[in-house]
Amino acid sequence: MASQGGHKTCKVVTAEAIAKNLLVEVKETLAKVQGGNQAKPTLVAFLANDDPAAVKYAEWSKKTCEDNGFNFELRNVGKELLEEEITKSNEDDAVDGTIVYYPIFPGNPTHDKYVQETVSLEKDVEGLRHKYLYNMYHNVRFMDPPENKKKSILPCTPLAVVKILEYLQIYNPILEAGNRLFGKTITVINRSEVNGRPLAALLANDGATVYSVDVTGVQLFTRGQGIKQPRHQVEDKEGWSLEQCLPMSDVVIGGVPVESFKVPTELIRDGAVCINFSSYRNFDGPAVKEKAAIYVPSVGKVTIAVLLRNLVRLIANREPKGAAEKGTVQAREEAFVDG
Amino acid sequence: MASQGGHKTCKVVTAEAIAKNLLVEVKETLAKVQGGNQAKPTLVAFLANDDPAAVKYAEWSKKTCEDNGFNFELRNVGKELLEEEITKSNEDDAVDGTIVYYPIFPGNPTHDKYVQETVSLEKDVEGLRHKYLYNMYHNVRFMDPPENKKKSILPCTPLAVVKILEYLQIYNPILEAGNRLFGKTITVINRSEVNGRPLAALLANDGATVYSVDVTGVQLFTRGQGIKQPRHQVEDKEGWSLEQCLPMSDVVIGGVPVESFKVPTELIRDGAVCINFSSYRNFDGPAVKEKAAIYVPSVGKVTIAVLLRNLVRLIANREPKGAAEKGTVQAREEAFVDG
Repeated sequence: MASQGGHKTCKVVTAEAIAKNLLVEVKETLAKVQGGNQAKPTLVAFLANDDPAAVKYAEWSKKTCEDNGFNFELRNVGKELLEEEITKSNEDDAVDGTIVYYPIFPGNPTHDKYVQETVSLEKDVEGLRHKYLYNMYHNVRFMDPPENKKKSILPCTPLAVVKILEYLQIYNPILEAGNRLFGKTITVINRSEVNGRPLAALLANDGATVYSVDVTGVQLFTRGQGIKQPRHQVEDKEGWSLEQCLPMSDVVIGGVPVESFKVPTELIRDGAVCINFSSYRNFDGPAVKEKAAIYVPSVGKVTIAVLLRNLVRLIANREPKGAAEKGTVQAREEAFVDG
Repeated sequence: MASQGGHKTCKVVTAEAIAKNLLVEVKETLAKVQGGNQAKPTLVAFLANDDPAAVKYAEWSKKTCEDNGFNFELRNVGKELLEEEITKSNEDDAVDGTIVYYPIFPGNPTHDKYVQETVSLEKDVEGLRHKYLYNMYHNVRFMDPPENKKKSILPCTPLAVVKILEYLQIYNPILEAGNRLFGKTITVINRSEVNGRPLAALLANDGATVYSVDVTGVQLFTRGQGIKQPRHQVEDKEGWSLEQCLPMSDVVIGGVPVESFKVPTELIRDGAVCINFSSYRNFDGPAVKEKAAIYVPSVGKVTIAVLLRNLVRLIANREPKGAAEKGTVQAREEAFVDG
């Protein structure tokens, strides 16, 4: 109406609102997957460093688990005992999923990678095992082709951003699943192996044109003209920077883990969607609200909701024990038609 | 999944599917508005020319009316008797809405305009009365401020395109009503007073950046940076053509009433949404399907569904006769929260 015309044109969406929504879905799926079984699933977390961010994440995870009908067990272990403890948890039927807080060996990512591979595939709630990462990069969505009943596990923070984009209806449900970002241009600022690169790959696999930006330069991730390729391909954009990427982008995702970094607001397209997944504020809040259509200031709580979603998926993926009689397989099929 | 990767990346959405959806909503709204009253609403159509397109439109309207619980009465009248017949229908309580097929006086649009003003505001199902057009251009959505219970009537073809964009989820329901196209860039090819110009205005009023293109040039319709203006403003884009507009456009809407005209596919953005409202095919179908994310080849059936939607709105807008007892006012409020 004519009288509206105010200044509140930017919708600020909190991680909390999105997480709440996801947790309802997680609980419903768990009930379907478990059938009559009322046992609380158990997530075991290994803390082998004293990173305050890890401690905080563990506290939030514990609270979210307990509020939503999951057990959460934090195990403080020395680095030298970690592999042995992970192995025990792999073999323990009372443990449904395992999370390890990295880095364990700062400055030695190969050693961390080794630790990641010790978590059994059936308990890797973070989707960090090579098999899961391979599937993600190659746009392989199931563990058991051609049955396609067991979905592959995706890493939590990148998947949290996907779930946020679904909630914001940037994924267009009118399009076929797997193509729902077709036509969208997205800039992801950060290309770490843990977050930025998997995120760029996921978004491009779903049909987006993705500019992946870090201090070393810009890469373009796409499935090609008309998204005719089955998975994304990567191309270097020599000489490009945020100056070229941002004015074209429908969605701008910041994940730079540095307090001083700010996305230059003047380059952002009027009406863009801006999402920050860094623990620092990558956007200048007041300025971005004058320009963006939607602003999501943080994603942490969604990441934890996704962690529980992955845990329920691991449970659903397990070989059903007498499931045929209980209709569990059927429930699993219905519960996991989505991404 | 990796094996999909085929060529069917363009979703073709028919006017029929969208109309079907709208007609369900129309019937539900009618039931609410009428309360216990089962009377079929009556739409009267005046045909005073022998335009074959008008005859065809009348036939479709009749069929759609009858399939959906409305009476449709086609009245063939001579041009010289038309004003008198419209006046009679204005005064006839058995008539709920009136439609007139234009042009009546080809080459004399002022005379047609005069005829349009003879239809009473309460029966103008096409929203062509000056009051309705004024409201549309000025982004005034209600007839009775400050109560805001009686919604203004919008012209059928432009509103049909709006309803299509809602169905396709280009309108983002996450955003506040009235701002749901914020961040979208749309090219409308056609700037006629009947269709193209009102459509560009409607889309810009809802927050889009709209390039309105015809043979005389390009105009930009927007509510300004950050959509802070209460209604659209228009700016000439000197020297611009489709070459500048199309590569930036998320949505391309063709309405050129000429068989030979085709939107140049090579200029359309990969993953765009393409909608044709011309009675000719403005897009090269096979080529556009290789590039667009969504293609809507025609809108006619949606226009007729919108005609019935407008008719129900006129009925809801009438002074309630003893409505307080029947809860009609309440029903009306619930039924018309949307655009």
